[in-house]
Amino acid sequence: MEKMDLQAFDTDAALRERAAKVIPGGMWGHQNSARLPAGYPQYFTRGEGCRTWDANGRSYIDYMCAWGPMILGYSDPDVEAAAARQRAEGDGFNGPTPRLVELAELVVDTVSHADWAMFSKNGTDATTACVTTARAGTGRRKVLVARGAYHGAIPWCTPSVAGVTEEDRAHLVQYDYNDVASLEEAVALVKGDLAAIIATAFKHDLGKEHILPTREFAQAARRLADEADAALIVDDVRAGLRLDLGGSWDLVDVKPDLSAWSKAIANGRALGMMTGNDRFREAATKIYTTGSFWTAGVAMAASIATITKLRDCDGIGRMKSAGQRLRDGLQAQADRYGLPLRQSGPVQMPVFLFEGDGDRELGNRFCLEALARGVYFHPTHTMFLSVAHTDAVIDETLQVTNEVFKAIA
Amino acid sequence: MEKMDLQAFDTDAALRERAAKVIPGGMWGHQNSARLPAGYPQYFTRGEGCRTWDANGRSYIDYMCAWGPMILGYSDPDVEAAAARQRAEGDGFNGPTPRLVELAELVVDTVSHADWAMFSKNGTDATTACVTTARAGTGRRKVLVARGAYHGAIPWCTPSVAGVTEEDRAHLVQYDYNDVASLEEAVALVKGDLAAIIATAFKHDLGKEHILPTREFAQAARRLADEADAALIVDDVRAGLRLDLGGSWDLVDVKPDLSAWSKAIANGRALGMMTGNDRFREAATKIYTTGSFWTAGVAMAASIATITKLRDCDGIGRMKSAGQRLRDGLQAQADRYGLPLRQSGPVQMPVFLFEGDGDRELGNRFCLEALARGVYFHPTHTMFLSVAHTDAVIDETLQVTNEVFKAIA
Repeated sequence: MEKMDLQAFDTDAALRERAAKVIPGGMWGHQNSARLPAGYPQYFTRGEGCRTWDANGRSYIDYMCAWGPMILGYSDPDVEAAAARQRAEGDGFNGPTPRLVELAELVVDTVSHADWAMFSKNGTDATTACVTTARAGTGRRKVLVARGAYHGAIPWCTPSVAGVTEEDRAHLVQYDYNDVASLEEAVALVKGDLAAIIATAFKHDLGKEHILPTREFAQAARRLADEADAALIVDDVRAGLRLDLGGSWDLVDVKPDLSAWSKAIANGRALGMMTGNDRFREAATKIYTTGSFWTAGVAMAASIATITKLRDCDGIGRMKSAGQRLRDGLQAQADRYGLPLRQSGPVQMPVFLFEGDGDRELGNRFCLEALARGVYFHPTHTMFLSVAHTDAVIDETLQVTNEVFKAIA
Repeated sequence: MEKMDLQAFDTDAALRERAAKVIPGGMWGHQNSARLPAGYPQYFTRGEGCRTWDANGRSYIDYMCAWGPMILGYSDPDVEAAAARQRAEGDGFNGPTPRLVELAELVVDTVSHADWAMFSKNGTDATTACVTTARAGTGRRKVLVARGAYHGAIPWCTPSVAGVTEEDRAHLVQYDYNDVASLEEAVALVKGDLAAIIATAFKHDLGKEHILPTREFAQAARRLADEADAALIVDDVRAGLRLDLGGSWDLVDVKPDLSAWSKAIANGRALGMMTGNDRFREAATKIYTTGSFWTAGVAMAASIATITKLRDCDGIGRMKSAGQRLRDGLQAQADRYGLPLRQSGPVQMPVFLFEGDGDRELGNRFCLEALARGVYFHPTHTMFLSVAHTDAVIDETLQVTNEVFKAIA
């Protein structure tokens, strides 16, 4: 009886039960909580700064930031004000609003390799437009992609092969990230037919250690693309605006020809972006890429406010400082309790793995114990800090993780 | 001197000049005003009901509805209120909001063939997910598409071939819409490898007469898909919710297995949708299709409000009645002035062409004269009425078109 009453108040479970009837498998894609250890919530009802509330009313310090977008935190007042102002004027029309021009100008002013920008709705829209533009500009077909890299979720790039034909990937050739020899081999293999080399901002494959590009690798990619008169594409969808406002490969002093952006560029509103240099300007006019909502003004107003605020408040500096504080604190705790925590990736986009934890037992337990204490980590995917993750929030998190380490030690 | 002063106030021209520097060709895609006769505005700043205002402050009775989405009119108060309520709770999180379940339930309750629904951001996301699901479910590859049909803007379907490889379309086979024999031929051609037949809600190819599906054609498509154990997909992206809330092919009593939706389903907010029947439920769990913003709650709250209002106010009946009034009025005027106007398509989604007007001189002139008098028509693309196009608005439009016919007669 008591159990039934409790269940009656489990809104998340009730929603899942209803969803199972009207959504295949109850949920799809990366947000499907079936991909997480049992215990994670599926539905959410509120967000404020670095905190989210699930459908059962439990709150968390959130280290996923809606899988990246919330770079200034949920409901950032400056972004919301800019979006509300634009909403009052209007969003989608028969053509764009003036925000399109203002945003493109801001992007060209901010992103070091960008002479121009085009907008869309998804990260996949942006990566696909980059590849198509590279092919249109070079008149060639082959695209070199790093083994295990994620570039989106349509047949040419989606991780599942269900419904994908061989031809969808006929012109992709794989190389190993940060491995110059493997990249050279791949280039040699496609001789004369190289359209592009595409690389994520850093190596952030699911469930694997995250690794920044070496300067040697990035420079080799630039040189090999140049020698073949092909495009170098950086997929900055996941990392864009968190590592360097000028583009993530500014960190290694390499400028791509084209780059793909999405996630954080409008602090949560749906926006994708392709930026490019003048070499590919004409090619970008030849492809046909478009969508019903791609010029909507509200997301663009939000993006202008997001980029401007990140610039003005040293957003990246603040995320790095908070991320370092978290990393140092966690490492000290892991050492104290003798647990083989292995943190990797940029401190503002970390992944936490445990050595010898092939079945993820330790990682899952670590995350579930943290979740039960109000901290939302992900056991295998890149996590995301935001500007709303202050030192006080990090310290609150570290108090929780101290309890977590103690519990699992 | 006077001319210069006037130009100084031409905000649209000033924006285009700035855009030319930071956007390839100044604009991309279907909203590029270079695709329209000179004289059309590029930038917009306000919308209210059936009216839009361009960046120069000129207002129009709008027969494009932002290329379809604004089915209840710009800034519909009920949709805006629902969206604002959800915005106050939140939009994107680590998982969906309860609106996902409510919307999927409403869709299953409304769309006659739908046992389930999945959501995305673009029409192209939805058509691509349908094709991928059909292939995953059948284990086959070939997809039959009607010659000249538009299904989106990524390599497998985009109208331009720039940047597209032969392999992107290796498994597409063409047939002619409403031509049973050509469909049968296409089916015979791919014998044993048929994954899907895809058809738009009606034939609405650019610059061509718009034609509803014949009952014979739709039934043949259903039968041929059944005989081959393949999927019948209706692409309802453009027409969805304007012809029949249950799905456009309810008009001809044929139920598809899968259908793709977008444009009008959230009255302007970015949302795409795939609906399907139980035969393809498991296949839909196998494909991997996802995006950073696909479960955002605000667009879903807007969609719930949109579908509910259309249902409650007999939105389709109202659009049909207004569309018929416009069609009858225009025909009487064209006859009176002896001009060979040829209206086609459903009255709520018309296209206006002129007989023997191969170079579009008459059609362009008709549209430009209307534009100059405050009515925004499109010379070659499907147009869209909304619930905000009342009888009074139609009569106001007909007063303008009477002047237009007089001017060009």
